[in-house]
Amino acid sequence: MATISAGSGTNDDAPGPSDPRIDPDRLLATLSRFATFGATDGGGLNRLSLGDADGQARDELCAIARRRGYRVEVDPIGNIFITRPGLDETLPVVLVGSHLDSQPFGGRYDGAYGVLAGLEVLLSLDDAGVRTRRPVTLVDWTNEEGARFSPGLLGSGVVAGTISLADAQARTDADGITVGQELDRLGYRGAFDSSSLAVHRSFETHIEQGPVLERTGTDIGVVNGVQAIRWFDVLVQGQDRHAGTTAHSDRQDALVAAARLIDVVDQMADTVDEDLRATVGEIRVQPNSRNVIPGRAVLSIDLRHPDPARLDQAEEQLRRAAAEVGEQRGVRTEVHQVLEMPPTAFDAETTDLIRRAAASLGRSAMEMSSGAGHDSMNVASRAPASMLFIPCVDGLSHTQAEDIHDEWAVNGASVLLTAVRWAADEPAGHSPE
Amino acid sequence: MATISAGSGTNDDAPGPSDPRIDPDRLLATLSRFATFGATDGGGLNRLSLGDADGQARDELCAIARRRGYRVEVDPIGNIFITRPGLDETLPVVLVGSHLDSQPFGGRYDGAYGVLAGLEVLLSLDDAGVRTRRPVTLVDWTNEEGARFSPGLLGSGVVAGTISLADAQARTDADGITVGQELDRLGYRGAFDSSSLAVHRSFETHIEQGPVLERTGTDIGVVNGVQAIRWFDVLVQGQDRHAGTTAHSDRQDALVAAARLIDVVDQMADTVDEDLRATVGEIRVQPNSRNVIPGRAVLSIDLRHPDPARLDQAEEQLRRAAAEVGEQRGVRTEVHQVLEMPPTAFDAETTDLIRRAAASLGRSAMEMSSGAGHDSMNVASRAPASMLFIPCVDGLSHTQAEDIHDEWAVNGASVLLTAVRWAADEPAGHSPE
Repeated sequence: MATISAGSGTNDDAPGPSDPRIDPDRLLATLSRFATFGATDGGGLNRLSLGDADGQARDELCAIARRRGYRVEVDPIGNIFITRPGLDETLPVVLVGSHLDSQPFGGRYDGAYGVLAGLEVLLSLDDAGVRTRRPVTLVDWTNEEGARFSPGLLGSGVVAGTISLADAQARTDADGITVGQELDRLGYRGAFDSSSLAVHRSFETHIEQGPVLERTGTDIGVVNGVQAIRWFDVLVQGQDRHAGTTAHSDRQDALVAAARLIDVVDQMADTVDEDLRATVGEIRVQPNSRNVIPGRAVLSIDLRHPDPARLDQAEEQLRRAAAEVGEQRGVRTEVHQVLEMPPTAFDAETTDLIRRAAASLGRSAMEMSSGAGHDSMNVASRAPASMLFIPCVDGLSHTQAEDIHDEWAVNGASVLLTAVRWAADEPAGHSPE
Repeated sequence: MATISAGSGTNDDAPGPSDPRIDPDRLLATLSRFATFGATDGGGLNRLSLGDADGQARDELCAIARRRGYRVEVDPIGNIFITRPGLDETLPVVLVGSHLDSQPFGGRYDGAYGVLAGLEVLLSLDDAGVRTRRPVTLVDWTNEEGARFSPGLLGSGVVAGTISLADAQARTDADGITVGQELDRLGYRGAFDSSSLAVHRSFETHIEQGPVLERTGTDIGVVNGVQAIRWFDVLVQGQDRHAGTTAHSDRQDALVAAARLIDVVDQMADTVDEDLRATVGEIRVQPNSRNVIPGRAVLSIDLRHPDPARLDQAEEQLRRAAAEVGEQRGVRTEVHQVLEMPPTAFDAETTDLIRRAAASLGRSAMEMSSGAGHDSMNVASRAPASMLFIPCVDGLSHTQAEDIHDEWAVNGASVLLTAVRWAADEPAGHSPE
């Protein structure tokens, strides 16, 4: 990695007075401003992908970019690419960014922090009059959360080729509205050919969504990869009957059977190992009426582990438990896998750049793997990519209570700025080009 | 009860050729016809109270009544009273009927059978040219199920005074639409003063909603009362967190805690006794998203037993389990009672009339208590009331699969006709007047 410092000359030094610096006030104000688009009474966000609030946030992002004269390009799945030109426009870009959409009752920082820290990087480079060798491109990926349209990571998936554009545009929400309809309504079905965008390195900054950084008092998580994920739907089919008249021995109660499975999944941290993340997040019961024994239940199961062999073990336990419970309770159970995501290893050089950027600013850092899926997994299939995490309060995420401290936000953006600038100034011809 | 035979002279004999008889073809055709109002693809009914389908069924019932020249009266909560006059219009009426509304995915007979068997009684009396001493009044009670508007037994509750008219009219469905609005929309906010309707005896026929009559090959259940019912809502408040990043030891998973409670409720048939009916019928989880640990769950719990002391025991177990699970899982639990219904004992003379009517027609009968709540509980607080059950296939009810055999339907209506005619002809001055 010695070549990196050759490019910028700043690799091992703290930034000098002439170096670009994050503007903390502007960063924090921008975070607050964007948190008004889809704000909930509970202090969080309800900014489902391609809804009105997402449209407002997109419009605001593009308006800021246009005022600065950046190039704004939108691809056919609505991903927004905002480019600050480099000295050599023929070179692949350095990509930064994340997503502006949220969970239905999500927090203000999951996704938005990565986009707005990336925006602050571009603005800081501008303010310092820095001309980078390579262009720097800020991206807002469409429908990362998957909360409105399934699957998540939709926009980056189209670019990575894990889902076809036609399929992605045809995905529907619970009301039958398609992604394509919403892109047209909001004016975000563009023509930019994002699949042929050449990327030198990609950086995504994000809140950790776990408690480790805060507990250990560490400023920056240097993310070496993402654990493997498997999603399942489990159907339990019993028989709905009158709650007041049906003896216990005559019941085929789908909810009682489902409760046993929830227990089994909860115990997997003991039966597999403590690094396993096993969650039943959704349950839908029919008819879901107070005086009717539930005839049908559908559960979602989310299993994650850095080692796929441990997921095999967890999946085997799930399938065996479903069969046993079905037998014991006189119900039919079906286990359907709906997602298989192998573990992702991020690019070692790009990860190392983050580590060194943190060190150069005197920020403490630790290497960690991500428990959550991120668009960077899709980017990593096409270009050298990595991520950096900042702490979040109590490890809370995917909840309105999600929060960060101002200094964490500033630290993350500062490290991102340094890493991006180094990457943008790496000499042409340096690997991975 | 010797005075009864003095009135009609038919007490211990099978009906002679000149006696009124149920028309099986008409009864079965009417049952089929009414099952088209709100019919579901699954062969059941979705005829929520005061919805369009309920309006159609009401209109059809009133149209039939008016063609026969019966008096049709509607009270301010939408209960419909259809009266075939008696020889002495000053005497209290004999009341028959039940309800036309259904569960969201309910069956064709729960409620409707009681109304339409009652209608067939009036028509059969007409066809035979019988003049009864007392008027016979058919009632369709509003919102028995409580599936759309809470509480159930709403229409009969207003008449019994368990709920005020103003409160009942202000009840809202999940969309915020009030009972009063729907009554106006459908044209069923009437002015009939049902609270001062004098009732000599009341009979409600209904499917058993349990398997006992079918299993024992018994034609008629003679219902001596209704078991006690208690309803609870249990709130479990944990913390929603990211499913992929939160270690097992850091979780306050509301759904896992709820699953433990579902298990405890399921085991109550062992821990209390086998006559207890204990059901978790509804569960609502927040945010109910695949990759979020549930932060909040609300469960409905339905406990029933003929002996309130057993319900005390079950409730005590529930409250203890909620406290323990809260402690163990780091969640807050709250148990709220939402309904307390003491056991109802039906009028012994009226019940005996049903038993003797079945015997006079050569129908087998057994005495039983009702596991389900019925409008007759409210009627019983004001007048001598009882119920008769017919079998249903596999004991299924509150499901689209609910079914009865033709001969069961005919048997029930025939016994009802006999009992009603005897009651209508009891001499004036006979108790309970």
